[in-house]
Amino acid sequence: MYELTKSIPYLLNRAGVRMGALFSRRIEQFNLTLPMYRVLASLREQPGQKLSDLAETTVVELSTMSRMIGTLVTNGLVTRERLPNNERTVSINLTKEGIRIADLLIKEAMHYEEVAVRNLATADIEKLRFLLNEIHDLLDVLESEQESLLQ
Amino acid sequence: MYELTKSIPYLLNRAGVRMGALFSRRIEQFNLTLPMYRVLASLREQPGQKLSDLAETTVVELSTMSRMIGTLVTNGLVTRERLPNNERTVSINLTKEGIRIADLLIKEAMHYEEVAVRNLATADIEKLRFLLNEIHDLLDVLESEQESLLQ
Repeated sequence: MYELTKSIPYLLNRAGVRMGALFSRRIEQFNLTLPMYRVLASLREQPGQKLSDLAETTVVELSTMSRMIGTLVTNGLVTRERLPNNERTVSINLTKEGIRIADLLIKEAMHYEEVAVRNLATADIEKLRFLLNEIHDLLDVLESEQESLLQ
Repeated sequence: MYELTKSIPYLLNRAGVRMGALFSRRIEQFNLTLPMYRVLASLREQPGQKLSDLAETTVVELSTMSRMIGTLVTNGLVTRERLPNNERTVSINLTKEGIRIADLLIKEAMHYEEVAVRNLATADIEKLRFLLNEIHDLLDVLESEQESLLQ
């Protein structure tokens, strides 16, 4: 008999969605969503990114990312500049206030991570990171299957 | 420097949400959502469950579960009966059509799982199951923290 609550997709989605929901609730007071936080954290690590890079990292559609950056510009957290040698590409950076908020929320995210993996051995955490990347990559196979079913 | 894309919350949410989104899209043609599928799969394993059991397994609020069961009753997939010795509790079961759909989708879910863990050793899959349960349980700590912040 199939046991739903022991299946990897169920366990993965349950833990992942709950983790995201908890952190989303934590950053609500900053008027930020989870993808917005990811934009700030990603720009803190690597300034001057393009829309397409940020869309990939934060796992949102390019059109959604474009609107999201508009909101973050309005809120004074990021700037958007055309590159001098490429009219079609914009470079996105944190403002001073954006850096301040990013640092504050990264500190909070590190606390969430610390609690979530508190009971795990260091080797297990490394293993988990590897396994989550492996599974994410294999989901490409399922996505291709779906696309060929729709054709 | 903090690396967002190596953090466990990021990797966990990214893989979990993508897994859920892919399977949700797969079952759209049956007019079912992911929590509805979970209800069917859970009743296939354990018939005669209460609303509260199903709400816990499928990770939705009790009020949402009550509405969802209403929809599944209307669609002819489950039945809802009051227990003779307890007027306030209902027992939920699959109809014959509900069993047919559950079996079909469980087969599909098993395929998704098989693909997702295709590259992993059996011991790693066991390990992952353990780690995902551990993390999910530790998220209770973060939830309690949030509740005390709100008080």
